[in-house]
Amino acid sequence: MDSKANQEPAACSDEHWMQIALSLAARGQGAVEPNPMVGCVLVKDQQLIGQGYHHAFGLDHAEVDALKSLASAAEAEGATAYVTLEPCCHHGKTPPCSEALIAAKVRRVVIALADPFPKVSGGGIEQLKQAGIDVTLGVLQQQAEALNAPYLKLVRTGMPWVIAKWAMTADGKIATVMGESQWITGQQSRHQVHLLRSRVDAIVVGMGTVAADDPLLTARINNQESQSVQPARVAQRIVLCHKRLPSSDAKLMQTATKIPTWLYCSPLVDSEQLRVLQEMGAQAVSLSTSDQSLMVRELLTKLGDAKLSNIMIEGGGELLGSFIHTQHCLIDECHVYVGATLFGGKQASGPIAGLGLPHLDQAPRFDLQSVDSFGQDVRMILRRI
Amino acid sequence: MDSKANQEPAACSDEHWMQIALSLAARGQGAVEPNPMVGCVLVKDQQLIGQGYHHAFGLDHAEVDALKSLASAAEAEGATAYVTLEPCCHHGKTPPCSEALIAAKVRRVVIALADPFPKVSGGGIEQLKQAGIDVTLGVLQQQAEALNAPYLKLVRTGMPWVIAKWAMTADGKIATVMGESQWITGQQSRHQVHLLRSRVDAIVVGMGTVAADDPLLTARINNQESQSVQPARVAQRIVLCHKRLPSSDAKLMQTATKIPTWLYCSPLVDSEQLRVLQEMGAQAVSLSTSDQSLMVRELLTKLGDAKLSNIMIEGGGELLGSFIHTQHCLIDECHVYVGATLFGGKQASGPIAGLGLPHLDQAPRFDLQSVDSFGQDVRMILRRI
Repeated sequence: MDSKANQEPAACSDEHWMQIALSLAARGQGAVEPNPMVGCVLVKDQQLIGQGYHHAFGLDHAEVDALKSLASAAEAEGATAYVTLEPCCHHGKTPPCSEALIAAKVRRVVIALADPFPKVSGGGIEQLKQAGIDVTLGVLQQQAEALNAPYLKLVRTGMPWVIAKWAMTADGKIATVMGESQWITGQQSRHQVHLLRSRVDAIVVGMGTVAADDPLLTARINNQESQSVQPARVAQRIVLCHKRLPSSDAKLMQTATKIPTWLYCSPLVDSEQLRVLQEMGAQAVSLSTSDQSLMVRELLTKLGDAKLSNIMIEGGGELLGSFIHTQHCLIDECHVYVGATLFGGKQASGPIAGLGLPHLDQAPRFDLQSVDSFGQDVRMILRRI
Repeated sequence: MDSKANQEPAACSDEHWMQIALSLAARGQGAVEPNPMVGCVLVKDQQLIGQGYHHAFGLDHAEVDALKSLASAAEAEGATAYVTLEPCCHHGKTPPCSEALIAAKVRRVVIALADPFPKVSGGGIEQLKQAGIDVTLGVLQQQAEALNAPYLKLVRTGMPWVIAKWAMTADGKIATVMGESQWITGQQSRHQVHLLRSRVDAIVVGMGTVAADDPLLTARINNQESQSVQPARVAQRIVLCHKRLPSSDAKLMQTATKIPTWLYCSPLVDSEQLRVLQEMGAQAVSLSTSDQSLMVRELLTKLGDAKLSNIMIEGGGELLGSFIHTQHCLIDECHVYVGATLFGGKQASGPIAGLGLPHLDQAPRFDLQSVDSFGQDVRMILRRI
């Protein structure tokens, strides 16, 4: 883990104020996507005079939210604005923030990160400079990149951020040799998984998991903590179907009229059976290939086209195996829950099956972002380097 | 994890002083075995006036060490002694501690835990009481039990404490499908493993590991931290041999004259080949069975008879698989290192192979003792409940 991330910046430094802006930005997680999370603080005479963030998709951007927090609009004159992402300069759902900052007569704008979004991409900075505003770029850039990694990936590659989540025993098993798996981890860990489900755009599983676990794949948050959680985003439930399709008895199908349920199908699936499931409320998308690793790539491209920022892969092992190749790894982030038990068994399943990587130097490297314990369980969050 | 363990006892309470005695006791780890770790503090008028611990096997016991730390012997009169384990009452390598405390005229003795060792087992407490000393038993008993769990297991069951250690990827693999495994974790983690090796009595591996990794199984501690480490205990290196024996080229055999190397052999091994290895310096022990799980039990009984307190199993998967049964689990403690990488592969090995447990309710439950990170790696320490 990066110990620098825990260092407190010096009081009243640019880093100090940007850190506050980043914390504000993070409050939008789960509500702003596919927009980026953005925070803004306004500082005058070393005092914080206003603050804001992008609360949810379609609502005010951070800069406007911060300007609105001022006692009077005139206060902004001569202030410094700290923004975690380059202010937008185009008319989208809201008027351009660059214009709002210029109109407010701020003296200086400090920006953590330039926005690679094609309609912005330096244009916001340029507008500010042309208006005579002093612009500083790159303060806490690394943290800003990390915060909005899913947004940045979608803009840069057209593919969503892929979060793989699994629960395993301390000896790396996701089920006993007889296939028993509920539960390896405790209630507190499972609650964390529901919180994660509540902030992603889609939850993807393979047919093996549908057949074995008959999951509902909804975010069920019903304890006190839910009060501090962002309004739930309802994730699409996606099944990648190679040959088999879900049974019409599956919980996913039984609830398909209420909760979006998508079947991404290779040409090998039975079209008659698929039609029945569509009549039950499932959405069907045809993939052009039945090669499992190409199916996964095509899925990601289609989800990116639909502007999904964060997707969560909940297994099973064969599906996750399709994300790992000798040439590339399509997993951006892993949420690994480890339960304090052992199953043993050469034949017991692990979280990632498939062919696997032959050589150690082909293995993807991750940064350990955090380690937490929930009861007797440990959660590791890893991010691709 | 038990949050109570982190609570600070109230100042000057019995718990406060016993906590200090427990911390002192722990300094003997790796040096006192097969004796228990014991610490002692002497308190008079709410002041700590003396402290000591059992430094190493054959040296003074904690009570005597604490009494010797006093400016003058007379100081002990009227004091309270806090001892983490019932004072011994028999003439062993040192005179009985019960007599030393009586002679020192302490007024009160507070003991965390009665000693189940047959020659003590309540006798020390009885002697103190008969001398008119006020005895309190059971202060921080749970911590004292945890500290000396290996000692207590050996006394109670005749078998050593079994520590299983492995390093795996975040998807539970100990090698790629091609068998590559060096290294999954970083240097800091491997250093921790060497520290562990330096305090156990034996390191046990199966023939699969000898053939695949050709390990040396020594504690190689060569950085600054070594200065604070107890003098290294040289662990016996033990290979459990079912049919195969190590090659005479194996590093274990090449160093067998310098570092104790034991072969515990089923009746199936080639006696002629074994004789050659014995001539190279290996010690051989015949087991009465070739059933792998019975072999493991017989190994543990023999090691207990030889008064080994802590043994470490370093794999491989088949050997560890023999420690896990539907009826019992022979592993007391797991040191699980998780590297921030993924190998994938249905055929890639996990840490515990064998038949495995069919049903989830047969799985052994552990307490999460600690979670640490070393660079990008996580270490979990688990103990059987």
